This record gives sequence, structure tokens and C-alpha cells, in this order.
Amino acid sequence: MTVRAAVAGASGYAGGEVLRLLLGHPEVEIGALTAGASAGMTLGQYQPHLLPLADRVLGDTTIDELGGHDVVFLALPHGKSAKIAAELGEDTLVIDCGADHRLEDADAWHRWYGGDHAGTWPYGMPELPDQRGVLQGAKRVAVPGCYPTVSSLALAPAFKDGLVEPEAVIVAVSGTSGAGKSLKPHLLGSEVMGSVSVYGVGGTHRHTPEIIQNLSRVSGGAVAVSFTPVLAPMPRGILATCSAALKPGKTIEDVLATYDKAYGDEPFVHVLPTGSWPTTGAVLASNAVQLQITVDPDLRRLIVVGTIDNLTKGTAGAAVQCMNIALGLPETTGLSTVGVAP
Amino acid sequence: MTVRAAVAGASGYAGGEVLRLLLGHPEVEIGALTAGASAGMTLGQYQPHLLPLADRVLGDTTIDELGGHDVVFLALPHGKSAKIAAELGEDTLVIDCGADHRLEDADAWHRWYGGDHAGTWPYGMPELPDQRGVLQGAKRVAVPGCYPTVSSLALAPAFKDGLVEPEAVIVAVSGTSGAGKSLKPHLLGSEVMGSVSVYGVGGTHRHTPEIIQNLSRVSGGAVAVSFTPVLAPMPRGILATCSAALKPGKTIEDVLATYDKAYGDEPFVHVLPTGSWPTTGAVLASNAVQLQITVDPDLRRLIVVGTIDNLTKGTAGAAVQCMNIALGLPETTGLSTVGVAP
Amino acid sequence: MTVRAAVAGASGYAGGEVLRLLLGHPEVEIGALTAGASAGMTLGQYQPHLLPLADRVLGDTTIDELGGHDVVFLALPHGKSAKIAAELGEDTLVIDCGADHRLEDADAWHRWYGGDHAGTWPYGMPELPDQRGVLQGAKRVAVPGCYPTVSSLALAPAFKDGLVEPEAVIVAVSGTSGAGKSLKPHLLGSEVMGSVSVYGVGGTHRHTPEIIQNLSRVSGGAVAVSFTPVLAPMPRGILATCSAALKPGKTIEDVLATYDKAYGDEPFVHVLPTGSWPTTGAVLASNAVQLQITVDPDLRRLIVVGTIDNLTKGTAGAAVQCMNIALGLPETTGLSTVGVAP
Amino acid sequence: MTVRAAVAGASGYAGGEVLRLLLGHPEVEIGALTAGASAGMTLGQYQPHLLPLADRVLGDTTIDELGGHDVVFLALPHGKSAKIAAELGEDTLVIDCGADHRLEDADAWHRWYGGDHAGTWPYGMPELPDQRGVLQGAKRVAVPGCYPTVSSLALAPAFKDGLVEPEAVIVAVSGTSGAGKSLKPHLLGSEVMGSVSVYGVGGTHRHTPEIIQNLSRVSGGAVAVSFTPVLAPMPRGILATCSAALKPGKTIEDVLATYDKAYGDEPFVHVLPTGSWPTTGAVLASNAVQLQITVDPDLRRLIVVGTIDNLTKGTAGAAVQCMNIALGLPETTGLSTVGVAP
Repeated sequence: MTVRAAVAGASGYAGGEVLRLLLGHPEVEIGALTAGASAGMTLGQYQPHLLPLADRVLGDTTIDELGGHDVVFLALPHGKSAKIAAELGEDTLVIDCGADHRLEDADAWHRWYGGDHAGTWPYGMPELPDQRGVLQGAKRVAVPGCYPTVSSLALAPAFKDGLVEPEAVIVAVSGTSGAGKSLKPHLLGSEVMGSVSVYGVGGTHRHTPEIIQNLSRVSGGAVAVSFTPVLAPMPRGILATCSAALKPGKTIEDVLATYDKAYGDEPFVHVLPTGSWPTTGAVLASNAVQLQITVDPDLRRLIVVGTIDNLTKGTAGAAVQCMNIALGLPETTGLSTVGVAP
Repeated sequence: MTVRAAVAGASGYAGGEVLRLLLGHPEVEIGALTAGASAGMTLGQYQPHLLPLADRVLGDTTIDELGGHDVVFLALPHGKSAKIAAELGEDTLVIDCGADHRLEDADAWHRWYGGDHAGTWPYGMPELPDQRGVLQGAKRVAVPGCYPTVSSLALAPAFKDGLVEPEAVIVAVSGTSGAGKSLKPHLLGSEVMGSVSVYGVGGTHRHTPEIIQNLSRVSGGAVAVSFTPVLAPMPRGILATCSAALKPGKTIEDVLATYDKAYGDEPFVHVLPTGSWPTTGAVLASNAVQLQITVDPDLRRLIVVGTIDNLTKGTAGAAVQCMNIALGLPETTGLSTVGVAP
Repeated sequence: MTVRAAVAGASGYAGGEVLRLLLGHPEVEIGALTAGASAGMTLGQYQPHLLPLADRVLGDTTIDELGGHDVVFLALPHGKSAKIAAELGEDTLVIDCGADHRLEDADAWHRWYGGDHAGTWPYGMPELPDQRGVLQGAKRVAVPGCYPTVSSLALAPAFKDGLVEPEAVIVAVSGTSGAGKSLKPHLLGSEVMGSVSVYGVGGTHRHTPEIIQNLSRVSGGAVAVSFTPVLAPMPRGILATCSAALKPGKTIEDVLATYDKAYGDEPFVHVLPTGSWPTTGAVLASNAVQLQITVDPDLRRLIVVGTIDNLTKGTAGAAVQCMNIALGLPETTGLSTVGVAP
Repeated sequence: MTVRAAVAGASGYAGGEVLRLLLGHPEVEIGALTAGASAGMTLGQYQPHLLPLADRVLGDTTIDELGGHDVVFLALPHGKSAKIAAELGEDTLVIDCGADHRLEDADAWHRWYGGDHAGTWPYGMPELPDQRGVLQGAKRVAVPGCYPTVSSLALAPAFKDGLVEPEAVIVAVSGTSGAGKSLKPHLLGSEVMGSVSVYGVGGTHRHTPEIIQNLSRVSGGAVAVSFTPVLAPMPRGILATCSAALKPGKTIEDVLATYDKAYGDEPFVHVLPTGSWPTTGAVLASNAVQLQITVDPDLRRLIVVGTIDNLTKGTAGAAVQCMNIALGLPETTGLSTVGVAP
């Protein structure tokens, strides 16, 4: 089986990571690469690490360029996916790495992103309960956000099995690539290196409603989330410290049994042995999620620390994983739990 | 007034930072510098940034070297301060940058550090309620830990005024110098750079009881704390995200009024204007604490994000500040709220 | 003596560093702060580390704002200094941190920077032979470039005393702040961290003619220079590896004697003892230059490795040092050879 | 064809990178993993990024463990390879990632490393003239050092074709993993981050004789080399600025033609188009060498800037490439020119 794949937004970080993975995917042939302002330039000027594609010229993000492929990955700014997806037709598998089709609530979309809601697509987190089936044969996939990926996978089993109270406190430390290539002063190397900062505190980050949506869905009830994103001096990786109060009578043994049941057979989610703590370095460039689970003895809070590579499992790896599922390929094809370290 | 000061542990990070500040202190003359295994070497081999002292030879940490000074700063491994302090006598101001004399509870000391408790000294956090008076004229000062400094200052006013429930969740991201110069594999540059990690999760970090002691004292009742330390790829700085549930009826306005009352006249604690978020880069090498305060609209949790330089306000700056108070010098002498950036 | 100082370009990195030093200068009172696009904003939004000035509002860079001060520091993009300097009049000490008045050759200026040459001002490198006298009482000072500072000080004594052939090879590794706050993709944190790059190779960097000018002047003849700048993942610091072929008959002893004669009494230039190698970390935030000198046994090349902080001795520290000299203050007032480490 | 491979020194950086590549090699089955002091522990404690091997227990580095494999990779401290290699017998392909068998001159070995020379093995740099044939069918391979790899590939064609004078000046900026996991103070994260340093200046680095050996061999005459290694704050990557005086009459066109002839068909060596400068970020985790070539107009020096990942093409990638050649597999199997960025 040869899958012809196109990537829209190939000059950005998410698009570049999709291409990095596709170059190692045995069933994929890379077709059109498109961009916005960078159209007409070679890919090598934007992604010098993708040497085999260095001479490829970026086209415009139009149906002329993107039509005729088996799968089209959209790595576009939010608000841009709906129009091109509509033109691509029902036969093409369209995988949106952006935010446009993640939220189910149109009002929430409007409040957090502005503009009209583009609709809701099958949500590309196969490790959530009953979600893998939704993705099989799907023609549209909304790739989850990076913070929601690690936060939801860290807490979903505990919420699903009713082990914790419905309030979560999440502090997630991220590398800078999550903000994309946007030219903002606070993203300059001089500002970022040697310094850690917070932004969007107090429930103001756009990924908050997506985390709430996921945890509410698995718990079957309303969940409140306090989410604080922290920017750290590294290009990639997220480490999320996620906690919630353990319900009376529940124990760490209950928790470990729940997580073992949820993730024991998952190829990409790995619960670390006791005493071994996750680092983002261990998942760099891999599709793995590493979790460590404990109960704070003082407060009886469940604390789950999770790590992912925001560009791989947090974006492009999930996109390729969902492509595999949607097309009926083995789910792990072209993906790896082997990171690059040190 | 000329104060003759000695520094024990001059080859380490805390001792080096004490010396950096003393070199800029107009009333201090630097006397003996001592070390453990490095005794007999020049300071320049360990602290090449302290150029004016590069040729000074490190002595042994003995009463022969350290006696006869007005003030002695101890920057020693834990368990080493009591003996030398006893020999120094009551006339010498002894400022312990280590952990030996911070905890009031001997059992807690034994549980967290092992060995016998060395006793409790006046606690060097002048910004806590009624604490400045304790330090005036003191001959012994226990310098607070770095995490307890930023965590306690971030939450103390809210706990003192009864604005929050007695449970705090703290996730603090720190640079690597907090771990000292110890030669451990996880502190190697190759491991640290490009990666964030957690350690001591679930109430297992030694700074936890000190935070509990501080918050319990100001609140007048038992406080439970869940504390998670995160290691980030930078040499200096701590950013602590501290939260607790706001009590019913309390508002952000109450909170801001409380913090303004507590810190409005403090020279080193600065509450940032709304919309401006703290970065550790802004306090690098300064004695400032920067705080941002918000209430999460979803969970009604008070979130205070605080930043310090762990080596300055978190250790050596507090030590010099306490020396100033103890000796009757203006409290800010030789200290600055001006950081080094970018 | 109280010196009233204004800073034009206060929102940038060079302007911020001038202010950081002036805040610690005992004879200076900080007057007007001006900016370009940032005029009307508070300084705190751009320089959160300068806490005592956080509420100061930035004015426009005009004679109305800048007039009436004893000294005006210009930290402006190249091509912008001449006009405002002309308006400031002969009585005001004007110190240009930019490139406009460094080059003596109008054609060279035009070739490297474009536009008309603004004229040549007394060159602010007091450690060059006979240069201190030129600066005493001067009313105009051109602050040297950062790369030329460390490169020239590393090689000048050898060239002056005729110890080496007139060809130098310089590879200088710099932190990112040398490029300023310009919003360019290659300066984003995500691009810079974890990666080293070259730019302007093969004599194409604008600092090349300034290095040639300095070395030619001290040697009394034409000097050719191959200069390669390398960008490293750190905010501050330059480490320059500078080499030239030793002339026949000259020895390392000749070299060391020459450097001792040149720099033995200099307050800011320090030749490290044999076996101790410079790091940029040791000069961070200090006005020191650290040099290590050796002769390669294989090629008989003199190798001088020099380190500075590009923003301090490489820009703002030199500016303050020259202000001190021009005004007759002790040269080291408000400056330090103490760095911030680790 | 299934190749059974063992790795001695699996807990270190070089051994870990060999394993990372072997995990992606379609023809390799990973057999014994051995270590020194870490024997008896699981690999996951040392290489948490190699998730599929996390539970494998490290054996002792003995013939009992390492015997019976098709290929054994040695990633041991220098001086340790000869004995185990002798025991492994002539039928086993032994690939030494260490320094023991690189130098041809026993006296040079003794001078630079101490102890007895273990002998010279086929040198694993297939891109050098006539070297690929030497490696085909070889049973012993000495993997080149990281600095010699990038320096030799950058300059070899110019030296071979007699375009330059026989004196090279090389300044190479490296990440910290090149120094291995050794617990030395100057390799601590706190020391490394935010700082650049030099070490081994003036021909004192052990890789110098290996560079001289390579360039002398291809030029057919004695070559002198001034080599300065610089340590930069990043885990991986080397950027080497290599220069030599162009011979009279030679032009940049001659140079480009020479490099095109030398590397036009090489799968891993890539000459960048004019105006595009190499970064180490673009080759991170890839087996690619990126070169940029220019002639300095002022000095008429050839400057070749080369980048590699020191752990991949600089060590483990070369090892796997040589294994492929020695065993008759396609040379690029399991290797990639696709890097991980940002």
C-alpha cells in the first residue's frame, strides 16, 4: 500500500515534524508541500534538517496543489482549515493539526478563538476510552492540542474510574516550539534562554476548554480545571504536573490498577516504575508518553506527572498515528517510542 | 562601620554568591575564605568570576581561620554548621546558609535530614509577619531554603488573612544551581540541557516541612502542602506556581488588598501589575521577589506565581539582608532589585 | 558631582544594559529615557529587570527629551545617531553605542553599512595604545563593537610589538543578544537553543573593517583579517579564538612579556594564569576581559582566547568607562570585574 | 539477513546512540548489552529514551556475554578495547567506537593517551579516498573521533587536490556529550549553560594527531594543524570552522569543483548552496555532514564550515555505516540524513 500524502503549512514547526515522520514511514510517498507567505521558496530554506526534501518548492495552499492525494495534513493557523477541507472532498483523509475542529461546543470555540466554529471532527486521541473505533475509517481527524494530550492522558483513567474529585490542577512546563515560528519578542532566544516564565495563568490559555472537554467526557460529569502553562528554555517537550484530590477510601493501589488496565496494552503510553521520574529528554522526538503516578501523603492528592514531545506525540506523531488507524495500517507504523538523548 | 566577614564553603555556589554580594557591599571587608576538599587552592580555580579574589588561598573550615571576624557566613553541607558555630562564640554573628537551623521540630529534622537536630535559629525571612524584629540584633540567623522563600512569600499573606483553605499545591520550576556543585549524573549539562524533569514528587523533597512550618505559623493552624519541584535547563532562578482554594465570599479584590498591605512597603517584594507575568530572567542576580496574583475563574483558586533568583534572594541575598538587619545597617545595603537581563 | 544622564533607545538590549550600569553608578542621576516605536510605554514592559525604573514612561527620541543632560547615551540603530548628536550641541557628552562613528574611512562605512558616513568620533577603547588621552575631556565617544572589542584587545599587543605576521584568523562565538531584539526567525529561541550556527563567513560581517582598523593602527601597517562569527545558545558573552603566525625568533616568553607590559596595570583586562582557560560565564555582567595566551607548538601560531560580556565590556560597560574618563571620574566608577556565575 | 549485535558500554552516551540506531535498523537483532560499574542494572535507568530496551539487564563486559554475536560494538573508555577484541576472535565483526585503534603511529598513541598502542584497525571514514574498499569485508573497524570526522571531511578534498598550503587552523564548537558521562565539575549543567569555554588549546587535544594523520595521508605530505576545541551549551553537535591558505592561482571555482567531485555521490556529505550556512540543529540525530565553502576575500583563505552530530555521524552513525559496509549491506541501511529540529 502506498499512501500519497500532502502537507499544507510545510514551512512551520508542526508541518516540518509531520514531514520528518513521513520521511520515515514505509507506506507513504510525499506529494505536495504548500505554505502561505513562503510559497515559491524551497523547503530547505525553512527546514534544513529535512535534507531529502531540501530542493522541493513550496506551493500555494490551494485545492490545485493539495487535490489528488490520499491524505492531506493541515498544519495551518487556526481558522484556516475549514475552507480547504471542504474543497478536498469526502474521499480524502484530512488530518487537521490545528485547533479548528477540536472543540464540540461552538460557543466555547467562539469565546476562545473568535470567529465561527468550523465544526467538530473525530478527535485524534486513540488512547481515550472507545476512541480508537471512532477513528477507524474516519475521513476527518482533529489532532489534539499538545497540552491537552499530556494532561488528558495523565488524568483520564483516574477520572473515568471515579478515583478523584472533579477538580484538577495542572501546571505544565513546555518548550518554545509549541508557540510556533511566530516572531514575538518573548520568543526570542535572548529572552527565553536562562529564564522560565508563565503565561495565560488563571484559565486564560486556549487549551483549557479542550482539557475540560476530555476529562468531562471520560468522567461523565462536569470537571473544573486550573491550568497554568510555563515556558522553559528548551525547544521541545512538555512536562505536566497534574493533580486532583483522591476520593475517600481510594488508594494508590486502586490508582495503579486503573492505570495498568487503561494503558497496559497501549503502544505509546508507558507508566514508569516507582522511583523513576519522567524527563522530557527521554521522549524527545518519540511518540511516547511517559507517566509517573504517586499520591501525596500530606494532602492525599493524586499526582500524575506526564511527559511528551509536544511536536511528536503532541502534534505530528498523533497525526500519523491517526492516519494509520484511519487507513487500516498497523497503528505504530513509522512511529517510535525511542527518543533522542542526551 | 567596617564589618569583617568570613565565608566558610567559599568554593561552592552559595559561598560564591555570598562573596559576589559582599564584594559590592560598601561596609564589608572580606576576611577568611575556607573550604573542605578545596582548602589550599586559590579561589580563582573555583570562582573565576570573582576576579578581585582570584589569588586568595582557601583555608580549612576551622576556628583558627574563622575566628576574629564580625560575621561568619556558613555555606556548608547540612549537618556541618553546629560544631563550628559553637566554637565561634556568642559575639560573632553567624549566618547559616544551610538547612541545619531552619526547622523547629527536632523530629521533623531527623526524619528529613537524618542525624541530630542542631537547634533552631532566628529564621531569616524578614518579610514574614513580626519577623524583622526577631532578626534585629540577632547573633544567629538561619537562612531559609530557596523553594520555601518564594513559596512562603507567595502565599503567606493569603494564609495570614484567612483568605484560603489550608491546603496549598505548589509546583516550582528551578534552575540547576539549587542542587549545588554535587557531581551527580542527572546534573550533567548533557542531561539537563533541552530537558525538564521532576524529582522528589509527592511530598518527598526536604523543603516541604519548611514550607509547611512557615504557612502554618502565619495562618495559626495546620496547613497541608503538596510540593513538586521541577528541574529546568537554566543555571539560576525559581518560578513557583502556588495555589489554594479561595474561601467562600473572598474575592480577588480582598486578595490584592491583603498583598498590598503585606508588601506595599517591602523593598524586595514586588507585586506585578495585572497582565504582566513574572519571569525568572527579570530577577536574575537580584534580591527581588516578583509576584503575580490571580484567581482562577473556573475553580476559584488563588494562584500566585512568584519568581526569585535561588542563589540571591533564595540564599546569599537573604543572608546579606539578614546581616544588615542584625547589625543595624540599612536593610538594602549592598543589595539590589536590578536584575541582569537578557 | 552628579551627572545627569539620558538614554536614547532605552527599550533595547544595549540601552537596557546602560541603564543597569547607571543604576549602580554613584555619581549618576538617570534622566530622560527615550525610544522609537515603544515611546509612550513604561520601561517595565521592556526591561522588567530594571525594577526601580519600571514605571518610567519612554519619551520620543528628540532634542526636547534629550536636551539638558550632562551625558546622552545613544543606543540606536545604525544611521540614526548623527542627526540627534548634531542637535545636542558641543557641551553635552554624547556617547554613541552604535556603529555610526567608529570607522575612519568613509568609503568603508558606505560599503559596509550603506548611506553617508556620519564622521569619526574618539574611539572608546581606552586600553589601546595612547587612546586614554584621546578620551579625556572628549565630548563625543564612539563605543566599539562587541566583536572588535575582544578581538582587538586579544591581539593588539602582539601586533603593536611586531611579534606576529600581519594576518589574523579570528573565530568568535557569541551569545544572541549581540543581534539585538530584532524579530528574525533565526533568532527565535526554538532555533537557537540546542544549535550552533555561523553567519557572515568569509569577511562579510560588518565588524571586520573595525577589527582591521584597530590592528592596522597599532601595528603601523596593513593587517588582513579572516573573521568568522558563530552564534551559540546563550544570551550573552563572546569567546574569540584569535591567532596569527609568530614571527621567526619570537617566543612565548616574548609574548607574555608584551602582554604583561600592555595590560599589567589595566583594571579590566586580565591575563589568566597558564592552564586556566577563559569561559564567558566568568565575565557575565562584568566589565572584565579575560585572556589566555599560548603558542601552538605545531604551527608556531600565537593563539589568544579572549572572553567578554558583549553587552557589558562589549557595549554598555565600555560606554560607562568612557563616560568616566571623559568626565574626569575614576575610570572604574560603577563598573566591576565581578561576574555573575553560575 | 539478520545480524545479531552486542553493545559493550551500553550505559554511556556512545553506547546509547549505537542502540538508538540499531533499534531502527531493519536487519539487526539486539543481543547482549554490557557495562562496567552499571552491570546488573536495567538499561532503563541509564537510557530512559530507549523504551523498548528499558527492562534489559546490563551484563559484564566479558567474552561470556559478548561471544556468539555477528557484530560487537565497543563503546569503552580508551585502553579497554584490545583485550576483549582479542578474545572475540577473527570471525566476529568488532567495531571500536573508542580511540584505541585509530592512530597508526604507536609513539603518537603513547604520547597522547599513555600506555601501549593496541594496534591499528581499518579506519571507519568511508568518505576518505579509497577507504570504502578497505572497509568492505573488514572484521575490525576503528570508528573515527568526532572532531576528526567533521574536520577531516571538511578539508580532505582541498588537501588531496593540492589546493591549499599544508597548514590548517581549526576552531570547533562542540556540545557536551562529546565528553561522555564523566562526572567532572566543568561538565555540570550549572557550569555549562549560558557559557562557552575553550579547553585543550594549542595542540593539546587528543584528537589533534588523528586530524593530522588524515590530512597528511590524503595530501601525501606533512600537514600542520592548529586545533582549538570550544565547549558550547548544547548536548549534541559540532560546528567546525576549518581554514587553510589557498595556493596561488587557485580559485573558489577550483574548490567547488573539487568538493563536488569528492562528495557529489556521497549519501551523507552535503555541500550547502551558497548563502546557506550550516547549523548543528539541522543535523541533530542524523548521519549527515553539512558543509559550506567559501574563500575569504581579504586573506585568500579557504574556509570550510562543517557540522555533524557528534554522537551520530561523529560516533554511532559512522559505526553503523561501517557495519553496513563490512557486512555487505546497503551502506545507508538504518541511517538517515533527516535531522530532528527545532
